[in-house]
Amino acid sequence: MRLYIALLHYPVYNKNDERIASAITTVDLHDLARLSRTYGVKRFFIITPLTDQQRLAERVKSHWTEGYGAVYNPDRKFALEIACVSGSLEETIREIEDAERERPLLIATDASNQNVRSLDYKEAKQMIRSDRVLMILFGTAWGLDRAVIQEADYLLDPIIGPTPYNHLSVRTAAAIILDRLAGQHDTMPSSFEHC
Amino acid sequence: MRLYIALLHYPVYNKNDERIASAITTVDLHDLARLSRTYGVKRFFIITPLTDQQRLAERVKSHWTEGYGAVYNPDRKFALEIACVSGSLEETIREIEDAERERPLLIATDASNQNVRSLDYKEAKQMIRSDRVLMILFGTAWGLDRAVIQEADYLLDPIIGPTPYNHLSVRTAAAIILDRLAGQHDTMPSSFEHC
Repeated sequence: MRLYIALLHYPVYNKNDERIASAITTVDLHDLARLSRTYGVKRFFIITPLTDQQRLAERVKSHWTEGYGAVYNPDRKFALEIACVSGSLEETIREIEDAERERPLLIATDASNQNVRSLDYKEAKQMIRSDRVLMILFGTAWGLDRAVIQEADYLLDPIIGPTPYNHLSVRTAAAIILDRLAGQHDTMPSSFEHC
Repeated sequence: MRLYIALLHYPVYNKNDERIASAITTVDLHDLARLSRTYGVKRFFIITPLTDQQRLAERVKSHWTEGYGAVYNPDRKFALEIACVSGSLEETIREIEDAERERPLLIATDASNQNVRSLDYKEAKQMIRSDRVLMILFGTAWGLDRAVIQEADYLLDPIIGPTPYNHLSVRTAAAIILDRLAGQHDTMPSSFEHC
């Protein structure tokens, strides 16, 4: 399994459908790092072009991997070691390409069905098992910019429960998606280098 | 489906295995309310015996259901209307019993396997589909007190990913559990009365 995930803070939409760079939500960094470790994700990229937000994400990471947090909670240290801060999606793709010698296939996620080609969970799961290098893109705020969705190789089906309500947090949506796609694997995650 | 969920802030453990009442994490209230609406849960109980913490939870709820938040984001209003603050597990059970004229079966959750009777996801799913009144109990901090687990009718299997790491947040664990247990239902949630 050569699976990566990325949490994009740009380009995403605000409530008024305007393109913005969203603020870091520190609890997202913890939750997605812990999910990554649980489901064998190789690296979790936190993408933001804002240097103050990059510094905030780095500070959260270093508190738990090198600071007091590392002693206080070694499980959290182990989780946050997998997190990497990146300035853009392009930079992230290049980094993975360098490590894997293969360009990752990009799977975008969105709460609504955009009427474009979309991948069901069974197909996505097979793809993950195929040993292709894949990266799942999660959007913060009101979701990924349509340009990102269109540039991605695939758009994953939205999470549909038994009700018409579809307003999950990105943390809980990522949990459900990773459990559906990587929950039944019995392989161990590959080793990775810290960033 | 007559499914309830409860987030317990007491009795739970702290890091040193001491019984405590944990503090409310407001993001948990939002995430679990949104999950409840997505998966057709009838009510989401926030359990804490501490009156200042009850007031905090009520304040979060009223901001989003009656205050500025209700106008700002009606989807969040709809989610948080399902949340009820309760002083104890016993009080919560009585409230459900009054509404359903049936005592709920209690399904406890825990990240580790306690070597007691434990319910797999297939069995739990069938139980939910059987129209029995059920309540899933989620613990905050370092997890539910063993006494609660022992008093519950069932203990659900822990979430096991493809790795040995099992330190998810209660938010993401609840997301995975609800998706596994109620994700494939095609029934709509029953109506409920606000609390």
